[in-house]
This record gives sequence, structure tokens and C-alpha cells, in this order.
Amino acid sequence: MGKGKVVLAFSGGLDTSICVPLLKEHYGYDEVVTVAVDVGQPAEDIISATKKGELIADKHYTIDIKEKFVETQLFPTIKANGSYEGYPMGTALARPLIAEEIVKIAKSEGAFTVAHGCTGKGNDQLRFDFVFRMAGLEVIAPMREMNLTREWEMEYAEKHNIPVPVVKEKPYSIDENCWSRSIEGGKLEDPSFHPPDDIYGWTVSAKEAPDTPEEISIEFEKGIPVSINGRRMNGIELIEELNVIAGRNGVGRNDMVEDRILGLKAREIYEHPAATVLLKAHSDLERLVLSRQELSFKASVDEKWSELGYMGLIHEPLFAALTAFIDKTQERVNGKVDLILYKSSVTVAGRSSPDALYSDDLVSFDSTTIDQKDSEGFSAFYGFQARLSKNLRNNN
Amino acid sequence: MGKGKVVLAFSGGLDTSICVPLLKEHYGYDEVVTVAVDVGQPAEDIISATKKGELIADKHYTIDIKEKFVETQLFPTIKANGSYEGYPMGTALARPLIAEEIVKIAKSEGAFTVAHGCTGKGNDQLRFDFVFRMAGLEVIAPMREMNLTREWEMEYAEKHNIPVPVVKEKPYSIDENCWSRSIEGGKLEDPSFHPPDDIYGWTVSAKEAPDTPEEISIEFEKGIPVSINGRRMNGIELIEELNVIAGRNGVGRNDMVEDRILGLKAREIYEHPAATVLLKAHSDLERLVLSRQELSFKASVDEKWSELGYMGLIHEPLFAALTAFIDKTQERVNGKVDLILYKSSVTVAGRSSPDALYSDDLVSFDSTTIDQKDSEGFSAFYGFQARLSKNLRNNN
Amino acid sequence: MGKGKVVLAFSGGLDTSICVPLLKEHYGYDEVVTVAVDVGQPAEDIISATKKGELIADKHYTIDIKEKFVETQLFPTIKANGSYEGYPMGTALARPLIAEEIVKIAKSEGAFTVAHGCTGKGNDQLRFDFVFRMAGLEVIAPMREMNLTREWEMEYAEKHNIPVPVVKEKPYSIDENCWSRSIEGGKLEDPSFHPPDDIYGWTVSAKEAPDTPEEISIEFEKGIPVSINGRRMNGIELIEELNVIAGRNGVGRNDMVEDRILGLKAREIYEHPAATVLLKAHSDLERLVLSRQELSFKASVDEKWSELGYMGLIHEPLFAALTAFIDKTQERVNGKVDLILYKSSVTVAGRSSPDALYSDDLVSFDSTTIDQKDSEGFSAFYGFQARLSKNLRNNN
Amino acid sequence: MGKGKVVLAFSGGLDTSICVPLLKEHYGYDEVVTVAVDVGQPAEDIISATKKGELIADKHYTIDIKEKFVETQLFPTIKANGSYEGYPMGTALARPLIAEEIVKIAKSEGAFTVAHGCTGKGNDQLRFDFVFRMAGLEVIAPMREMNLTREWEMEYAEKHNIPVPVVKEKPYSIDENCWSRSIEGGKLEDPSFHPPDDIYGWTVSAKEAPDTPEEISIEFEKGIPVSINGRRMNGIELIEELNVIAGRNGVGRNDMVEDRILGLKAREIYEHPAATVLLKAHSDLERLVLSRQELSFKASVDEKWSELGYMGLIHEPLFAALTAFIDKTQERVNGKVDLILYKSSVTVAGRSSPDALYSDDLVSFDSTTIDQKDSEGFSAFYGFQARLSKNLRNNN
Repeated sequence: MGKGKVVLAFSGGLDTSICVPLLKEHYGYDEVVTVAVDVGQPAEDIISATKKGELIADKHYTIDIKEKFVETQLFPTIKANGSYEGYPMGTALARPLIAEEIVKIAKSEGAFTVAHGCTGKGNDQLRFDFVFRMAGLEVIAPMREMNLTREWEMEYAEKHNIPVPVVKEKPYSIDENCWSRSIEGGKLEDPSFHPPDDIYGWTVSAKEAPDTPEEISIEFEKGIPVSINGRRMNGIELIEELNVIAGRNGVGRNDMVEDRILGLKAREIYEHPAATVLLKAHSDLERLVLSRQELSFKASVDEKWSELGYMGLIHEPLFAALTAFIDKTQERVNGKVDLILYKSSVTVAGRSSPDALYSDDLVSFDSTTIDQKDSEGFSAFYGFQARLSKNLRNNN
Repeated sequence: MGKGKVVLAFSGGLDTSICVPLLKEHYGYDEVVTVAVDVGQPAEDIISATKKGELIADKHYTIDIKEKFVETQLFPTIKANGSYEGYPMGTALARPLIAEEIVKIAKSEGAFTVAHGCTGKGNDQLRFDFVFRMAGLEVIAPMREMNLTREWEMEYAEKHNIPVPVVKEKPYSIDENCWSRSIEGGKLEDPSFHPPDDIYGWTVSAKEAPDTPEEISIEFEKGIPVSINGRRMNGIELIEELNVIAGRNGVGRNDMVEDRILGLKAREIYEHPAATVLLKAHSDLERLVLSRQELSFKASVDEKWSELGYMGLIHEPLFAALTAFIDKTQERVNGKVDLILYKSSVTVAGRSSPDALYSDDLVSFDSTTIDQKDSEGFSAFYGFQARLSKNLRNNN
Repeated sequence: MGKGKVVLAFSGGLDTSICVPLLKEHYGYDEVVTVAVDVGQPAEDIISATKKGELIADKHYTIDIKEKFVETQLFPTIKANGSYEGYPMGTALARPLIAEEIVKIAKSEGAFTVAHGCTGKGNDQLRFDFVFRMAGLEVIAPMREMNLTREWEMEYAEKHNIPVPVVKEKPYSIDENCWSRSIEGGKLEDPSFHPPDDIYGWTVSAKEAPDTPEEISIEFEKGIPVSINGRRMNGIELIEELNVIAGRNGVGRNDMVEDRILGLKAREIYEHPAATVLLKAHSDLERLVLSRQELSFKASVDEKWSELGYMGLIHEPLFAALTAFIDKTQERVNGKVDLILYKSSVTVAGRSSPDALYSDDLVSFDSTTIDQKDSEGFSAFYGFQARLSKNLRNNN
Repeated sequence: MGKGKVVLAFSGGLDTSICVPLLKEHYGYDEVVTVAVDVGQPAEDIISATKKGELIADKHYTIDIKEKFVETQLFPTIKANGSYEGYPMGTALARPLIAEEIVKIAKSEGAFTVAHGCTGKGNDQLRFDFVFRMAGLEVIAPMREMNLTREWEMEYAEKHNIPVPVVKEKPYSIDENCWSRSIEGGKLEDPSFHPPDDIYGWTVSAKEAPDTPEEISIEFEKGIPVSINGRRMNGIELIEELNVIAGRNGVGRNDMVEDRILGLKAREIYEHPAATVLLKAHSDLERLVLSRQELSFKASVDEKWSELGYMGLIHEPLFAALTAFIDKTQERVNGKVDLILYKSSVTVAGRSSPDALYSDDLVSFDSTTIDQKDSEGFSAFYGFQARLSKNLRNNN
């Protein structure tokens, strides 16, 4: 008589696959339910995970939350100009939603325990555990607890008739959803190592990209992208189409050293073609419609939103308050941005908005209320304390 | 018997040229001393300003402060990742130094009044006035005070035998120093107007750029760039060489809507090839050597430094305190960054530093003191208040 | 045939009184409409202003907006822990509402010009002008424009049969509303001068206060005070009662040097008994119910809210976004705070809340999910980068 | 043959006393060296710890670092207006220095292991561990690891002939150094419980305080207090004297709910008479001499300094950069502040400074360079974008 049922977050990779027998043999569970969550990974990965889960688990679920992901995480991250240490987050935004689906299945299946395949070095263990613990579930993380080597895992898989990838060597660790693809590990760990071109999956290199610039225009309503070149589409369509357009022009690669939550720095490489274009267009439009005071303070709100987003702490009460701030500002973020994509660069060529805090009259002043003479009065007070302080220091 | 001597900040353009006779005829000064300050404008502009000043003024000075400009303003702006609303400032950083040279000449010439050719709509009047007022000098700004039209200015110039540019139409207003070239005005004022290619002077278009990527590596010591591809050079040489290298690859254009100090939004276009490369390399290196706490807080210090820099308020006492903060962090910003320039994009390919807060051992943990098991304890507290708060809300 | 009608913000003091004839004689208006706005000044001041306005102006309005003031400005300032450089703002919060009433009267009276009695040195001119200009009205400020002396004003008043206060010497300048009383000017301008006791109007001195401590308890709902000692009352009643209770215990005096908007530092003295008690109680309650993340970030939101509030810029779009943030956090700021008032000090003695992020179980840990052992794991990562950095520096 | 030598941070209380035999019997060490560090606790506590350590340990050290504590931690905390969630930190500032002394003894004694008596629920374990781990030492924390009850500890102490306090019940947990005394635990854990008067040790109640106000004046040089009432003294003397003066007037009690590092909220009560007076005087003086820009930004620097200080992370590299910022501003924080202490309240009565950013001329304007008319020009631009935005919204 074992411990009953456990629900496992399942990607179909080697790690989560061997968790199935491990949870029974090593941890003593009677039944393992696998759950694969579709957040926009390549279709073949979802299909393969589904087949594998159905093959090796007692029960398997595949759940498509792409639309929810776009609406509850990606639209907000656009509004927040969401980026962590300079790149658009992706994995971080998907993890909490994936975890919430696991929780739902655990509840409906009557399981009190969930499991994931994360190691003890990265961010995802924390993002998963946070949601699981919040739901009062016990968490098992075999990779973190058992210190297994890849060789041991391969052997163990074969012994349990778990299909493994042909190539024994898995040089990089990859995570994908419709917003971002991350590549890490192997030789890339050395921050001075120049990454080879074959690590990229969504973008061509600038050299391979077409010799003709591609112009696109994106329209926003309340901070959310609603159309490309005048064609309205829903969020997931728009992002997928932009991934193709920007990807074929080599736009959206990122190579960086990043601070993980536990304090380790890690070299990470990302691809996020649609994200690069949308975030550039969005922030450009914001500069046209938001006041200087809004732009300046929103930068700190965006930074904190992104930090919590990176940490997966979307249920921290601060997150809701930051969101209320952001949503208020986005009411006026309406308009169109023209961009040129060409050989990995994306350039804003023009922008317009019915809410622009700008008009021709203004640059040539609002002649009825302000004239150039007024600047003299403004200038009289400009830097007043600095001037006073400098002169005090000179005289003392 | 007139009002004596006035010292005029002189660029050789139409505005400052007609100021010479205006200061006598309209303002009643007996003697006009012109001062042209070399902050890295194109050599022909300096030569032309010098000739013109010698021709039309009672006395003329041309003063080369390129080295001072680099050391006291550009090195600090690199250390501060200096940018305003997303672009590297240039004009803003040069103005206070130019003004200080005018002050020196006014003192040595025994003049109590200075003049500049700025209008009442822009930032430069405020940056100049600030330094002049701090020195206790009276300021005259004919363009701000007299509301002159270009036609009137042209006629007035001819009447006073002041050589004017051949083209009557001056479509854009341009300002240059070795860090940045700004283009504004005319049709560009419309933020939706796509800028034509002929406005650019320092950069080729991505299409014209070579078909072969150019790799360079830049070394930093204490946050300051000291060599390109292993060749040490001083600041002004390094910046000028980088302007050529990056410019020929189409790197460093910027098209944006910007908030001026007085509150007007204006569409501005910039070229800053060296700045683009150096700021990208510098911030990448910082992510390798600074702690997460430093990176996060320094972002707000950099933002405030940049805001004061943009405002020209480098004598505000806060500026010195921000600088002390920044300099402390830069002690460890040593190392080398490899970059690839290609058809207007600049990509970091690798980086290394003796001060890296990173090592292979670390990614695979400091095995003597931390192991994966410790993450479980960390995770137990992770998001503790958020979990508690969420559950309180669910239960209430 | 003159310039028609002008609407004057009217307090009944000497400055605004002489504006009535000045606006006719000096500025050429045919008709002067005076408006006194009641924001909780002493009743006798409102009565006296009303009588005087009716006597000397062509038409007079007295408008009571106390309730609106409490609900749209004071409740929000409590939620925002509103303070500028350490004291609870009052005058700043009333000015925009007063100005808005003037605008309404101007519109209903068909006037295109408004006037106020502020000088060119203070904050109020800017707060008033901001609202007036926003409404497209022309603004006249005789005190700022004419540089009048008090002696001249007295004579001018007598000549026009305007009743003036008996005492010729008016040693201090005082402004009052139900949130705060400010005293400035005269000998107080010297920041080292010890203020005499007779400048205070709402509070007794600590020496005069009773020898018995007074305990009160205040209940909050969504960040807003709703009862004292269990008696529910509306905002204006609650504030007025607290002004009496705290005032008789000597609570709520403040003596400080403050930075005015134009950059001048000025010594100001304030009385704000209710504000002192309510802000102390509110922030104490916040520490019980808000998460550390909320408390820490809200501090910067509160600071910016207060800065805009001080500047009178409540229509700056940022203000609405900050308010959205604050309101979101206040949903959980419910509970009761016990305080002891005694001889000018106010002490929190206890607090409780249904939304407390706290329980006995928690201090003794949530035993099912966390135990002391977990702290070891947490500690292993604690200050990880700092330790690494320190050791790098020691070894290099 | 055991594990050799271990160095124990020793307070003489029950917890650290029973650690001595525990480290031998339970952990297997051969030799226990106890170290008591004097950071200004009551002299009798130090004497008693010394006697006890000499009695029960193999070797005992008592080390007086009061002067170092004042100069390297308390002077900086004054300059930083150091406070965490509203109260002046004390324990947090002492812990890292105590830990460093333990490390020194461990090195000189040739020990590779250190021990402390902290539990797994509080902050001190993290502050100690941080320094110990940084030094590469192994850490033992019996209270955290063994989950002992007070009864068990008492019995174990008796069995090992360790003198225990007469009173079996120890209702509160107290920590003291010359800056602060903290009281927590027992009935105080309930945040709504009104604390009894007998928990206080350094301050009388307001009722017991004298009926006559006590005036004092404190002089600062570069942000550091150097004299009381004109008598120069060193830091430790000054703080001790101020603790007496303020304490006898009932000044310096604090009752609050605080967020501990691990995320738990805890009700804590503090006494810090000297700190209350010095921080109030210091921040008042800052408002006289620092520019608005400095005051505003320094608030965020002070907040971060305090947060790191609270966490004990004084070796985080950010801490040094924040300190550089603060020290730069403090160069001008020179002057004298007059205060009145009376029945638990402390009031600033006046202040003066040779570096005041203030002068009589200024309030009446710098008449040669600014006049009231200039305010009109300033006002024309005031809130420009807010006005524009409001009108856009009204028209759209």
C-alpha cells in the first residue's frame, strides 16, 4: 500500500520522463498523473509530450492555455515594458500559469502531492514551489533531491522502456513558449564563449536575412497590440505572426549574463522576435502619449513589475497594485507605430496617436498662453539651489 | 558712450552671426567678443567659425576643450550608462563646458555680460543661463527676446556684410560634438514623418553598410574604455575611431519623441555611433561584475544622473553625490567585451573580467558551502508573505 | 468701457480686499466678483469674508466645499500617508479645489479673467495659476505684479473705505483649513529663532496639556478612518473632533525648514492635530496588513503622490495612476489602532486587523510547511553575491 | 579524539550557556572558546558574561568594540538617517561587528568552526551566518538545529552546573547595545496587547518624566554629532550621555510591527533615546543645508542603506557605493540644532548652519537676479503637460 497519487508537471524530456518511475519506485507513490501544458511551445513538442505521457504515466493530461497565457501574462508584460536586466522575460511568465494548471488537476484528481523536474540551481523550482505551496500541496523535486547524473538517467530510462532522444549528448538546455526561447548550459556557460549559430531556432542570422527591409506597422489600443499592417487579429495570432516576420529578418536575439534568484550569475541566450518588436513599438508610443512625470515614474513601476514577474511572484499583493498603476496609464496608449525590420535590426520610422501629448502648435508654443519671453522667467529660477550652493561653496 | 563689452557664445551659424551687430545696434554694446568652443564638431565647422568670428567680431577666441569634454563629461556618462528617455545624451553634456569657457573669457576680458543665440523654446537657453547666472553675469539672448524671422535675419546679415550659407532654406537644425549629432526641425517635427536618408552625416544606412560583419573588442578599466582590439588609446582617439568604425556599419541612429525641460515633446533624431557601442559594451560588462543589488540600485542612480545631465545641472550638489556612488561601483568594472557590428546592429558576442562575480564552480555551485538541498530551505520561505496573503484573501 | 468682469479668489484679508478696487482702477475691470471658499477655516473667518465681500465687491459668493475637500483630498492623503519633507500637507491640498470653484463661478458668470492675491515668492500662485490656465482663463495677480508695501496697502484700503484689522502690524502670515494651520513670516523667517507660544491656535503647549493621558482608538476601513472610540462619524466630523482631542493634548505641532517649489527654503510652522494622529495610526495599521514588498514600494509611491500634491498638480496624469496603485493596496487596510495622547506625544499602544499578515501560528511558524531547519538552506544563499564579491576583492 | 576547537558567540544567557556543554557532548568538539563582545550593553551584563564564560568554557575572551561600533556603524547610521520601517536599527548594526570579532578569534585560535545561539526564526542567525560563511568557517547553531524547549535547557544547565537566572520564567527576550534596546516575545507577540510599563529599562514613562522641559543643543560636523550644549565629546560619551538625558525625559520608545528578513511579521518594542534625538536633529539640519534634489534622492539612498543595514549585509558591494554617496552629501551637514525634551516628546526649536542653503536675502529673493515678475514666466510652464493632457481628455 503506497502513498497514493502524485501529479507531475511533464515536458516529455528525459528529466520529467524518468520522474514517472522514480515517483513510484523511489518515492513510493501508487499512481503518477502527468500534465503537459501548452504555452506555445513548438507543436511537435506538445504532441510528443502527449504521446509519451499517455505511454508511461497512469493518466495523462495535455492542456492548452495559450490564450490565457497571452491575455493574463503577455499583454500585461507589454504594458509594463516587461524586461529583466535588459531582456524580455518569457519562461518566468509561463511558469506560474503552468503550475496553476497542475494544481487544478491535483485538486480534481484528489492528489495531495505534486512533482516537478527542476534542479536546485535554477529559478523554476522556486516559481513552481511558490504556487504549489500556496495551494497547500506537498512538493517533490527528484532532480533537486537525488543529484542524478545524465548517464544514470539514460540507463534508468532504458531499464523502464522510456523512449529517449537518439543523441546521447544534449549540449544545451532549451525552454520555449510563444514569447521567448531560452538556450543555456554546455559551452555557453562560459560568458566569453562566442555562441555558434546552430543554437538558434526562431531567428535566422543577420547575414541570412533578406536584403530588402520589411516595413510593418502595429496598432495599439490601451497598450495592447491589436493589428499588424491594419489587419486586426487576436493576441496569439498576432504574436505568432510577428515571431515569423521578425524571425525571418533576424530580429530578437539576446546574449547576456543574468542574475538568477538564488544569486548565481548565469550566461543565457534568448530569442524573442515578436517581443523585441512589440516592446520597442510600445515604449516608443508611450513616449508620445505619456507625460514626462508618467514616463519617469512608470520606469520604476515597470522595473518592479518585471522583478516580481521574473521571480514568478504574481500573487504577491504588490503585483496587483503595480498592475492597477500600469493599467491606468495605458488607457491613453493608443496609436500606430511604423517599424523597419532589416538584418536583425528593428527601427522605428514614425508614430502617431489620437492621445499624443504633442501638436504642431505646441512645438511652436501655445501662442495664446505661452511665449518665448516666459522662458526668461523660468530660466531665472532654473537650477536656483544649485547656483546658490555652488556660490556658497566658493565663498566658504 | 555704450555699455562696454559683451562676450558671445559663437557657432558661426546665422543666428549667432547676426547677434554680433545686434548686440551693438540693438543692445548698445561697444565691443563684441566671440568665442567658439571645440567639443569635437567637424573640423570645417570650427575653422569656418574661427574665420567668421575674426572677420565680424571685435575679438575672437577659438578654444579646444575636446580632451576636457571627454574626461569630465563623456567618461562619466559611460560609467553612468548615461541616457535620457532611451538615447545617449550629447548636446546636453557639452553645453555646460562651453558655457564655462565663455565665463572664463568674460572674466579675463572684464565683461559683465554674455550672450547666446538660443531661442526660448529649447533646452540650451536653460543650460547656458544656469552657468552664466551662477557666475553672476548678465545674460542676453536676442533670439529669445526679439522674435526674429529667418527672412529678417538673412536680410540683416546681408546689410552687415555677414557671409551667409548659400542655401537660403535650412531644413533642419543640427548640433554636433564628438559624442552625438542631433537633427531636428522642419518636416521632422511631425513624429509620424519617416525621415529621409540624407539627414544623416555620421552613419551609412544599413543597406549601404558592408556585407561582412566587423568584430571588435573593447577593454575597460574602472568603467572607462581604454583600448580597441588591444590597441590602447586616449579617450578622444578612441571615440573618434569608434565613430568611424560603427558609423561605417550603420550603427548608432535613433529616432524618438523626447520631453524637453520646459515640458514640450519634440521629435528628435540622433546619430551616436561610438556612444551606442560603448554604452552597450559597458552595461554588458557591468552585468558580469556588479552584484544584483548594485545593478538594480545603480539603475536609479544612472537615471537621476542622466536627468541632471540632460538638464545641464552638473553643479547641482546631488550630481557630485551620484558621481561618488557611480565611481565606487566602477572600481571593479574592468574587462573586455567582444562585439559584432553588422548592418546597423551591434551584438555582444562574449565578455570576460578579472572581477567577474562568476565562475564555472559557481554555476555548478560552490560545492563546499552550498548544495542543491539548501534550495529546499530557501524555497520554503520563498514568497512567504504572498502565499499567506493569497490564502487570507481566499478565506476571508 | 472697461474690460468686463473679473472673478477674485477672496479671503477677506488685506491683500485680497484691496484687490477689489485695484482690479477696477489699475487693471480697468468694470465688475469684480469675489468668491470665498470654505475648506474648514475658523467659522468667524468665513463669516467675516462673506460680510466684507458683500460690502466691497459687486457680487460675492461663499461656497462650502468642506465635505468634498475631505473626501477627494483628505481621505486620499491619509491613504497615501501624505507628507512633504516630513509634515502633513494642508494648504497645498486645498488650493486646487478652491481654484476649481473660482473657475466654476467664472464660467457661470461669463468671466474670462480671474485674479488671486498671491505674491510671486510662494507656492500658491503656481497652484492657482495651474488650474486657471488649464481652464483657459487669463490670470491677474496684483501682489505679484505690483510690488506693493504693506503701508501702501493700508493707506489704499482706508482711501477706499475697506475695513482693515485693528492691529497695523501683522506679524505672521497664517493659512487654515480643517487639516492644517500654517504660520510663517516675520521673525519666524529666521530658522534659528525659537517660536513663541502665542503663534499657535489649535494646540495647547505640552505644559498646559492635561496631566492624564487620553486613550483613543480609531477604526479604518479601506484606509479611511470611520470611527473614534467606536462611534462612527463622517469624515469632516471625525477630523474636527480629532482636532479638538489631539489639540487639547498638545499634539500636532511642527517646526521645519521646507523647500518651496521655486527653490527657496523657508521656515514654516504647522499645526495639524488630527492629521498627526490619523497618519500615525494609518501607517501603523499598514505595517500590520501590507506585505514588506508593498510597504517598501508604496513608500516611493506615497512620496511621489505627496510631491505632486504639494505642487498642486492633482491633474497631472501620473497622479491618477499613483492613486490607482494606492487604492488597490488600501482594500486590505481595515482594522483598529489604539493610541495614547499625552502632553504633545502620540503613542500607538496596540493594533488589530482581520487582514493582518500575521498570526500567532506564524511567529511560531506555519508548522506544517516550514520548520527551523529550512532556515539553514535559506541562510546558505543569504548574501551569496556579497560573500563572493568580498572574497574576490580579498584575493585579487 | 573529537573535532577540535569551536568558537562560540557568547552572551552569558541560558541559550549560549548550554551551548558550551552541547558543543562537546552533542557535536563532539573537544574545546569550546567563548567570546563576549561589548557593544555597549549594561556593564553588569558584560561582567556576568565574562565570569560565566571563564567558569564554564575552556577559554574565554571579552572584547570591547564600543568605539569601533560607534565610528563604523553608528556615525554612518546617523548620516544615513538609518531606520527600518520607521525605527532606528540597533541590533542589526551590532551583529556583523560581533561576528567579525568571533572570526578573528577563530583565526587566531586556529578553529575552523564557530557557533551561535540564534534560533531559526529570527534575523540574527542570518546576520551571523553571513559573516561566518564569508570567512569560510563552518557554522553550528544548536538552537536552530535541535528544537530545544526552555524546560529541557534549564534541566540540562543544572546537570552541567551552569548557573541559571533565579527567575525560571523569562517573559521577554531582550537585546541591548549603546544605540538601542529591543524587547520582544511573550505576551508582546500579540500586536494588540498594550505593553506594560515594566518592560522598559532605559526610559521613564512620560508621566514619570520631569515637569520642566529640558533644552539641549547638538552640534554636527560633516553629519556627525560632536557636542552637546557646547561640550565636545567623543561618540561613545555623547551617545551615552544623550541616552541618559533623553531617557530621563521619557524620549525614545517605539512599539511596532516589523517585517523580519524571512518574511514573518513580528511585534517589537524598542528603546533608543539617544538615537531618537540624534536622528531628529540630523534630518532637521539636512533640510537646512541640502538641496531639494539631494533630500529627495537621498531618501531613497537612506532607505536602501537601512535595508542592507537591517539585513546585516554591510559587505554587499552596494553598501560601499551608498556610503560614498552619503559621505559626499554630509560634507556640508555642519551646524547646530536646538531641541526641547519634555515628557517623551522631542521638538526642534531652531537650527543654524554656515552651510545653510538659505539666507534672509533669499526669502526676500536675490534681488539682483530674480524678481517676482519672473514667477509669471515660471508659472506659464508650470504643469504644462498636465494642463495639455487634461484638455486633450476633455476634448476627446
